[in-house]
Amino acid sequence: MNKVWLVNGAAENTVNISDRGLAYGDGLFETIAVRDHSCRFLTAHLQRLTQGCERLGIPVPNRELLTSEVEMLASGVRHGALKIIVTRGSGPRGYRPPSKPETTRIVGVEQTQPHNKDLYRKGIRLRICNQKLGINPTLAGLKTLNRLENVLARAEWDDAETHEGLLSDHAGKLVSGTMSNVFLARNNTLCTPDLSGCGVAGIMRGLIIEHCTEQGIPLDICALSPKDARQADEIFVCNSNIGIWPVAELATERFAIGPVTQQLMAAVCASGVAECAP
Amino acid sequence: MNKVWLVNGAAENTVNISDRGLAYGDGLFETIAVRDHSCRFLTAHLQRLTQGCERLGIPVPNRELLTSEVEMLASGVRHGALKIIVTRGSGPRGYRPPSKPETTRIVGVEQTQPHNKDLYRKGIRLRICNQKLGINPTLAGLKTLNRLENVLARAEWDDAETHEGLLSDHAGKLVSGTMSNVFLARNNTLCTPDLSGCGVAGIMRGLIIEHCTEQGIPLDICALSPKDARQADEIFVCNSNIGIWPVAELATERFAIGPVTQQLMAAVCASGVAECAP
Repeated sequence: MNKVWLVNGAAENTVNISDRGLAYGDGLFETIAVRDHSCRFLTAHLQRLTQGCERLGIPVPNRELLTSEVEMLASGVRHGALKIIVTRGSGPRGYRPPSKPETTRIVGVEQTQPHNKDLYRKGIRLRICNQKLGINPTLAGLKTLNRLENVLARAEWDDAETHEGLLSDHAGKLVSGTMSNVFLARNNTLCTPDLSGCGVAGIMRGLIIEHCTEQGIPLDICALSPKDARQADEIFVCNSNIGIWPVAELATERFAIGPVTQQLMAAVCASGVAECAP
Repeated sequence: MNKVWLVNGAAENTVNISDRGLAYGDGLFETIAVRDHSCRFLTAHLQRLTQGCERLGIPVPNRELLTSEVEMLASGVRHGALKIIVTRGSGPRGYRPPSKPETTRIVGVEQTQPHNKDLYRKGIRLRICNQKLGINPTLAGLKTLNRLENVLARAEWDDAETHEGLLSDHAGKLVSGTMSNVFLARNNTLCTPDLSGCGVAGIMRGLIIEHCTEQGIPLDICALSPKDARQADEIFVCNSNIGIWPVAELATERFAIGPVTQQLMAAVCASGVAECAP
């Protein structure tokens, strides 16, 4: 199926070349899992998009309008990925943002295949990427259109047996995967990197943090290193599309799918991510 | 005049939404001054574009084809700005680059007004931006489409009396202006920030470095701070569109247009940037 796009409400598959989304990556995006004709965690995605717009000074798209477009596109899809892009729109040449930007609101959906169940049952293989993430608190946490670091990190491997790569920042601190957040369990405490310097604050990461509170799982949001990852009792990565993938291999280390990971997979499954079923 | 664009050789003013230039800023650009129907420093711009493509793993556009498109568009313009964008093209969802990317090659031109001569004669007012640049050696020097930091820096001021802002990296080192490179003269030595961590290696910066060698002006490419800028004998900013703008004011400091700046303005003028005439 060809991807269906709406640009400011009209069926189109192009944007103007002068759009600042293309020129400077001056915008944000969300990728939302569609299951059974409905967007999963839509409220959380729209909330992050709103916060991102506010932090970048981009007018927030009308929530009702955006929701209706999203729901219309999702209604035709059983299993897919829906993307929202919001940019600061077109404007005169130069970095200076227009004083009254007319944003570009893009919504598109495509059908996808479910992930191989073995990734949930047996776990995935992680690598450690050479590419580093630049530290930038102004942009940290946001899913901006400036993603070249992620692209270069993902370009580091080509084998189908490696499913994700871990990224550190330029100070050597562990941040995330290329398309996921990462959690480590050690001594029955769960840890995940603090994202105040860089990285994307994932919707699934937020949900897992909530589950930890509800279920009394001790959680540290703190500074971690790739070495901490190698020495962890359990590791998993997460995003809103996959839910949780346990990590079975990282470099030369092997990991079992331990009790904390299993408990959280069950919780995430109960929250609507059926593919995480234990 | 409406902007004229060529996309892969065809007259169009849009790109596909699935283009990775929009999705991830996965591409590069050049902005080239057009004077008297001709592109200034075209060879240097195409060389930087080529190096950028090679570093990002994007196929280099055919030089003859690109040159012919650029020259065709420039031929219709007396005074303008020509932009080249090269992206990794469209591809399937996800950060992973396609193994055989079909790049998108965009060329556009617009007429511009000459800058006010006072900016060259009396100098400009600089500010120091709060926004910092993330350190990323993989991308340092390149003019990629990931420019949100520059956008946010340029959004910090709105008054027409301030012409440029200075940016530091997260380690506190001076890097550049938002749209220019910066040089300081102190004790008859010219200094400019080392750009191995971040910043764009400007065409005009490169030309000035060459002029220093030819004219025996001592030059240090080194670590500098905003304090060094405030304490300099002379400051100027440069890019290939403006040539050199002497700095008259930075924060509470005032600067004369000193002998090193004047010498280099004359040299840059002689290299074809007539607006830098002393």
